[in-house]
Amino acid sequence: MPEVFPGGDGALRIQERLDALARISAEPGAITRLYLTPEQARAEVLVAGWMREAGMDVRRDAVGNLIGRIEGRRPGGPALVIGSHLDTVRNAGRYDGPLGVLTGIACVEALLREGVPPVALEVVGFADEEGVRFSATLTGSRAFSGHLEPAALRTLDASGTTLAAAMRAYGLDPGAVATAARAPETILGYVELHIEQGPMLEREGLPVGLVTAISGASRLEITLTGEAGHAGTVAMTERRDALVGAAECVLAIEARCRGEGHLVGTVGRIQAWPGAVNTIPGQARFSLDLRAPDDAQRSAALADIEAACRRIAVRRRLGFGIALLHEADAVPCDPALTALIGAAIAAEGYPVLALPSGAGHDGMAVAAIAPIAMVFVRCRGGISHNPAEFASLEDIEAGARVLLRAIRGFVAARAEPE
Amino acid sequence: MPEVFPGGDGALRIQERLDALARISAEPGAITRLYLTPEQARAEVLVAGWMREAGMDVRRDAVGNLIGRIEGRRPGGPALVIGSHLDTVRNAGRYDGPLGVLTGIACVEALLREGVPPVALEVVGFADEEGVRFSATLTGSRAFSGHLEPAALRTLDASGTTLAAAMRAYGLDPGAVATAARAPETILGYVELHIEQGPMLEREGLPVGLVTAISGASRLEITLTGEAGHAGTVAMTERRDALVGAAECVLAIEARCRGEGHLVGTVGRIQAWPGAVNTIPGQARFSLDLRAPDDAQRSAALADIEAACRRIAVRRRLGFGIALLHEADAVPCDPALTALIGAAIAAEGYPVLALPSGAGHDGMAVAAIAPIAMVFVRCRGGISHNPAEFASLEDIEAGARVLLRAIRGFVAARAEPE
Repeated sequence: MPEVFPGGDGALRIQERLDALARISAEPGAITRLYLTPEQARAEVLVAGWMREAGMDVRRDAVGNLIGRIEGRRPGGPALVIGSHLDTVRNAGRYDGPLGVLTGIACVEALLREGVPPVALEVVGFADEEGVRFSATLTGSRAFSGHLEPAALRTLDASGTTLAAAMRAYGLDPGAVATAARAPETILGYVELHIEQGPMLEREGLPVGLVTAISGASRLEITLTGEAGHAGTVAMTERRDALVGAAECVLAIEARCRGEGHLVGTVGRIQAWPGAVNTIPGQARFSLDLRAPDDAQRSAALADIEAACRRIAVRRRLGFGIALLHEADAVPCDPALTALIGAAIAAEGYPVLALPSGAGHDGMAVAAIAPIAMVFVRCRGGISHNPAEFASLEDIEAGARVLLRAIRGFVAARAEPE
Repeated sequence: MPEVFPGGDGALRIQERLDALARISAEPGAITRLYLTPEQARAEVLVAGWMREAGMDVRRDAVGNLIGRIEGRRPGGPALVIGSHLDTVRNAGRYDGPLGVLTGIACVEALLREGVPPVALEVVGFADEEGVRFSATLTGSRAFSGHLEPAALRTLDASGTTLAAAMRAYGLDPGAVATAARAPETILGYVELHIEQGPMLEREGLPVGLVTAISGASRLEITLTGEAGHAGTVAMTERRDALVGAAECVLAIEARCRGEGHLVGTVGRIQAWPGAVNTIPGQARFSLDLRAPDDAQRSAALADIEAACRRIAVRRRLGFGIALLHEADAVPCDPALTALIGAAIAAEGYPVLALPSGAGHDGMAVAAIAPIAMVFVRCRGGISHNPAEFASLEDIEAGARVLLRAIRGFVAARAEPE
């Protein structure tokens, strides 16, 4: 394997920095770094220091995103942005988010050693991807792409503090949020490296994967209404059991989603009423989380699932209700930028496994203003949002090599005209 | 229809007495009469008065059962017992229990007008069938049949009072409980009239029904264990989704029970863990309530259901656990006594619908010391344990006529040898 990632100790340093960041937490013995908290401030100091060490100019934007930049041959020109987030869920792992930021810093540092790059490079540590504190995700990257609604400033956290007040307390001016928005012409492209948070790379025995799209998602709640009754006195043929109907729907959802690659449907919650051991359920309600990398695919699946559940309800003489709780369209990755990453994976000697990201990422928001691409790094057991989250040093190294090679490829292509 | 039930106003009086009892409640605007409470005492006074009015001697036994008796031609001889219970669930209806006691009193009164019956007749108002206060059912009838375990006296109510202490506070001697037990030779038979608490009579358009057996019941809890995961990142084919497995089990239970008359299986409770919309359930747990009038039928069904669920778990790579929470054998009704009731139903001009009782009744306990039989009265919508519980005056009348005719038939058969 060619020595693309200089020194070979790059992954070790990334790992040491992940460990240092993991020590910044609101809860001792766990990793919890929420938006606009003292933990964000401490992480900011640490990461800004590493960015400067790598040779970057560092600034914080109006919502708290941390941005390190090196100029290209033409100062002030548009940049290739490498990013991910610095915030975490509660009791998180140490890789989800920071791995992409720290790998980005390491790559920029490696490139700088070769001289001034043809185009500007930026590394962004988004301030709030997880949305734990204000229960709205992607606050950092939505502001970055100019898509943070002004109403978001009135959102409350659990203690009743508005986002605007929390920004002020952190030293940010909520009136200046719009200044965080980047004009599309300032960004050549956006690349994000992230742990997979799923088991596919592990199952395929691969350290890295090529992301084709960030799946769109629909979240629904389906309610079936029958007739409650005594479990001992109503004959099976006379029943209108809402839970048995729901069970049939759960299987119909699985059957519909099993048939198609990358379409996934999950019933994560279910409840029966009145919920007594000796009472036939008169009502049952369950959630549906449906995701696909292609919106038409998701829409078709949703229509089929709704029709199937309605048929089940009619046949079982049950009332049927469906409520859409949340919907987000799929974000396809940019073909050219993605091809570049695919070529980098192949050049590093790995088979190219193309897969959609079922989880959301900052790239979803950045896609509104720039072509995006993502590279996944294998994580053990697909476990994430959990202290057991783990990516090996070897896989971090592989991811860093792929990212560096892809950035170098991008930069080289831009250099040609000159 | 022959004028068997004298006066024709018998049902009206039963209804008035049901209404009077319904006014005795621990909760204003609802019907709640629990064991060993001031409400039991007030109901006792009222019902004892009606028994005496009908010509009966009245006593209260050692657990608080109210017993009215008229002697037959041979004083002190064995009795035909007509009974049901006077206690209720919380926020109950007015028919479940009292209808059988008050109809019994009306029948005895009607018979007495024809002279001293050949054998003794007793009407028993059992003190605790529902078991709401001490969460053990049939306390009254189990003591009556000599099957109340001494350990039951140590059972606690929600306020931490033992059954023994509550008995003392009520004026009963817990040391004398054994004296409530009746010797089998003192009881010729036991007949109970009760609302159906199910929809079968209403569906068939019949006011009364013939009970063949009180179904046995098994209550179980089944747990499936798979692997939790991110709803967006784990392919359908890679999942070990515990809830989808549980859904398949729920349908297998329905399919197995649908095939056989009077076998019923109910999943009343279900839960998935961790229970988040966007997380694949790693564990699912559900209850199973299985009832059949025949124990071999229930055992075979339970074995089939367990095998089917285990197969589902194996096929889906899920862990499987099953726990038996409760088991009660079926109690068949006495063929001769039941034939007598069937003949009475036919003589009253109704088709004889034979059906098992899926719900438990005092007769289950009394069956240990005497042949038992039951007659069901239609109730609207099959609704019970609910203020909406309702039996029409016409159906009460029909039930009373059938019960009176059956008692007269029983008594006449005993009179022949003399």
